[in-house]
Amino acid sequence: MFSPIKNTKVYEKVIEQIKEMIAKGTFKKGDKLPSEREMAESLKVSRTSIREALRELEIMGIIESRQGEGNFIKDNFENNLFEPLSTIFLLKESNPEEILELRHIIERGSVILAAERITHEELEEIDLLFENAKNSNSEEELVKVDITFHYKIAQASKNFLIVSILNAISFLIESFIKNTRKNILTEKEHKAMLIQQHRTIFTALKNHDSNAAEKAMSTHLQYVNTQMKKGIH
Amino acid sequence: MFSPIKNTKVYEKVIEQIKEMIAKGTFKKGDKLPSEREMAESLKVSRTSIREALRELEIMGIIESRQGEGNFIKDNFENNLFEPLSTIFLLKESNPEEILELRHIIERGSVILAAERITHEELEEIDLLFENAKNSNSEEELVKVDITFHYKIAQASKNFLIVSILNAISFLIESFIKNTRKNILTEKEHKAMLIQQHRTIFTALKNHDSNAAEKAMSTHLQYVNTQMKKGIH
Repeated sequence: MFSPIKNTKVYEKVIEQIKEMIAKGTFKKGDKLPSEREMAESLKVSRTSIREALRELEIMGIIESRQGEGNFIKDNFENNLFEPLSTIFLLKESNPEEILELRHIIERGSVILAAERITHEELEEIDLLFENAKNSNSEEELVKVDITFHYKIAQASKNFLIVSILNAISFLIESFIKNTRKNILTEKEHKAMLIQQHRTIFTALKNHDSNAAEKAMSTHLQYVNTQMKKGIH
Repeated sequence: MFSPIKNTKVYEKVIEQIKEMIAKGTFKKGDKLPSEREMAESLKVSRTSIREALRELEIMGIIESRQGEGNFIKDNFENNLFEPLSTIFLLKESNPEEILELRHIIERGSVILAAERITHEELEEIDLLFENAKNSNSEEELVKVDITFHYKIAQASKNFLIVSILNAISFLIESFIKNTRKNILTEKEHKAMLIQQHRTIFTALKNHDSNAAEKAMSTHLQYVNTQMKKGIH
């Protein structure tokens, strides 16, 4: 019996070359790639192979193709982790509690780093966020404030891997634990409690007190998760 | 001026349908998909569109194509998160310390869950792992024991999202902080210290003592990270 022969795929070699150039810093985020023709000529491969490679890099979320403008190294990875995490979630038949658990773990860790690293400007931004929220009663606005508050803490950790994972988790919550966040935020008793919990976290951040920040975040997410789990069942 | 018209892509609709069938449980991990011909007939689209959709699902890590056998929903997601995390790492010009920080955060959290949820069988597996390590002096064997120990703790957390992220982080460490883990494990003084730290974590797990497990893991990873950072610089 013959064994099937695996094709050596030219486009895979093209992908490797482009990734290496990213790793070496030749291409940086936002950079425009050379045209298909130029790449085909300098790599001595067919334009079909270049097109296949670019297509795959686009699916991987590494480049984006803008019609009439060409191909660019992506600048925005917000959704990059969501797709694979959501696939894992679906295919492993995970339950929504696992998402909340993961969020709790990462936010508890990131708030410790944030307390150490948050800048004066970042603290002021959060303060402004709270001020604006005071004057609003719209549900949508309150959800936005909540998401932004947690996002700003992640950013203040200055660890972009953490920011990316928390973004993906936020999308997971939106997709698989629908509407629960909104329900919590708009019930009157919860609303007051959540505002107070956010304030406690903020004070700890302002004092650069990692221990207090961790405790406050943990209390907050325990409360939120308990409410959300009620929504799930 | 005309605006460019965005093609409605048939294969994207095919992808959506397949994903929905996964979400609904019609397709489960390991399942074989219908043949290209059958799918083309029942979805009333061209075989080219089916092939494009399958190709994209393969790149996303959702299906795998086995030559001569057909297409299967993937059973193994070990590498699914690595690719996008590594892209983020490279393109955001992150530094290796961010990987170690993320690992510390997630393992600290997962060991708390593991202490609550670890079974008698899982504890015995770790005990056996230690026994086998005692009789070995090969570097490779010690690295394997270390990786397996941490992997078993992640699994004992019973949260597959955590397991997946820690797997991806482990690959990141292999790829971007090369050889450092090995160096630590084989220097004599470190080796004795690490064995002792692993034992302390294990005892806490056996006692189902989350607090002690968290502290022991934190001490352990602080030690490991400090050594690894020396390797980075």
